[in-house]
Amino acid sequence: MEYTHSGLLEQAINAVVARQPKSVFFVACGGSLAYMYNQQYMLDVETDLPTAVVNSNEFIHRNPKLLGENSLVITCSHSGDTPETVAATKFARERGALTVAYTHRADSPLWKSADFALHYDWGEGSDAYENRSGMALRFIFGFLNAFKPGSTYQHALDSVKNLGDIFDANITKFKDRADHFGKIHKRDSIIYTLGSGPIYGDAYSFTACLLQEMLWVHSNAIHSGEFFHGPFEITDFDVPFLLTKTYGQMRPLDERAHAFLEKYSERLTIIDAQEFDWGGIKEEVRQFFAAPIFGAVLRAYAEQLSFHRGHPLSVRRYMWRVEY
Amino acid sequence: MEYTHSGLLEQAINAVVARQPKSVFFVACGGSLAYMYNQQYMLDVETDLPTAVVNSNEFIHRNPKLLGENSLVITCSHSGDTPETVAATKFARERGALTVAYTHRADSPLWKSADFALHYDWGEGSDAYENRSGMALRFIFGFLNAFKPGSTYQHALDSVKNLGDIFDANITKFKDRADHFGKIHKRDSIIYTLGSGPIYGDAYSFTACLLQEMLWVHSNAIHSGEFFHGPFEITDFDVPFLLTKTYGQMRPLDERAHAFLEKYSERLTIIDAQEFDWGGIKEEVRQFFAAPIFGAVLRAYAEQLSFHRGHPLSVRRYMWRVEY
Repeated sequence: MEYTHSGLLEQAINAVVARQPKSVFFVACGGSLAYMYNQQYMLDVETDLPTAVVNSNEFIHRNPKLLGENSLVITCSHSGDTPETVAATKFARERGALTVAYTHRADSPLWKSADFALHYDWGEGSDAYENRSGMALRFIFGFLNAFKPGSTYQHALDSVKNLGDIFDANITKFKDRADHFGKIHKRDSIIYTLGSGPIYGDAYSFTACLLQEMLWVHSNAIHSGEFFHGPFEITDFDVPFLLTKTYGQMRPLDERAHAFLEKYSERLTIIDAQEFDWGGIKEEVRQFFAAPIFGAVLRAYAEQLSFHRGHPLSVRRYMWRVEY
Repeated sequence: MEYTHSGLLEQAINAVVARQPKSVFFVACGGSLAYMYNQQYMLDVETDLPTAVVNSNEFIHRNPKLLGENSLVITCSHSGDTPETVAATKFARERGALTVAYTHRADSPLWKSADFALHYDWGEGSDAYENRSGMALRFIFGFLNAFKPGSTYQHALDSVKNLGDIFDANITKFKDRADHFGKIHKRDSIIYTLGSGPIYGDAYSFTACLLQEMLWVHSNAIHSGEFFHGPFEITDFDVPFLLTKTYGQMRPLDERAHAFLEKYSERLTIIDAQEFDWGGIKEEVRQFFAAPIFGAVLRAYAEQLSFHRGHPLSVRRYMWRVEY
């Protein structure tokens, strides 16, 4: 069965415009949740909509009173069968919210539970435009543009078409540095990550999904602004940090963490969005595209770490293997 | 100069009622930020107000469009001179928001920057009723009761008077277990914490302020619901975890983490709110009082860890010592 989701995407955007939501909840688990931070950031900066990023099970049990007919609830599960996310989507829908779910698996339980289900491609040979990264940007910019049409949003929507080329260019650009990162950290038992704003989600997924889950390396995604209010005391010459420096208005937070870490750790790795190949994306929307580019580059860093440690990213000891 | 803040508290509550806010931002750094999670939870469960907990510097640079005259912004700094929190309070006030600041230092920069500044006591001999924990509960329950008066809120407000006795009873109750925790973890370089809902803030402050800042122990506050979507793969027989199990509707998340950890780690410590001495606090509001009680008990655990490691909680290598 074929799913050409451009029609569905348009329907979902129209439904958002028709609903005129008064609050937006981004609800998922793990890497899918991490992916929501950039979308939340876009709405916080571009609209006066209240937003929240919430773990699916927290969302259900917390049961926020704000959730209702005036809410838009965006959920995501790659497999489409994450039980908490399927349950959260049904829960939100029963409460009258407009529900939009992202998933790679059409016809999955998640797909069937939402008002609008948006399929995304994945894996070798697929185009970033049709992947989760491109699809999420097209959905959010799509309804922003529908609410308030303008050349900036149109430029952003056009730029999504180049995302695959931009990913490739940056993976190539950072290839040697990723290899170096893998080599020098092959024996480390802990690597901290830092980020802020929309990139906090990238730091979080690098910590939770790539380091802890796939590589069994201890980690903590420290918020660049929070760093100075406790966590920075664990800094030492031999403690490894991976700092993401983003592009745009959040950058001062990362700059401050950089200045400190440069002084007190000898094991600091920086990935700086100012060095990205932006492939024609204009200044004014770069801060919204930084997160997916970080995602692609960080994946390359994890792959090199995997190679040097001899620990494939596919290895699990609990996930999909035991009951939990 | 004497500050008797009961009058100020009443004024602040009246101002909130008069303003009828449409959104609430909790803005602070580190331990003061961690303290906001419980207050946010109270509003999420009891009202349909949109809420957010945001680091002060993130708040300023993110510059959410939602922030304005219809916003209530609650900030906190113990010393009253955390630069980012003072700046965030001024920033919110300039944007027309109603600003309420908590601080131990009357006449501090923070005190002067807010529309309403609420002083709290601190340290030996002070009563929890007048400390940050009691004061924050009186403020939040105070305006909830003003919006919608009822016997439940009145009971909660009356219960705050017993908070000091409840803290003492629980510190005594968990004394031997705290000592045991300190002893068995004296040589550990990493201890993970887990929590959910309102207690996530306690897990966060134990990680960021007690373990990382004061004891130089690596840590990460893992959300109990997120645990299963990546982080749980770092679980092993010898990896230490401290799990907080809360009281009330969020408990299923912690139960699930408990069942898993019990099976796969031999180094699991549980602090369970169902074992707390509740000192007359009724069932229906216990979930809102669990966070401050956890705070008192967790402090006792950190003190014992400090004792066994021979590392005083007051030692710093960067904070207040170098420029950053």
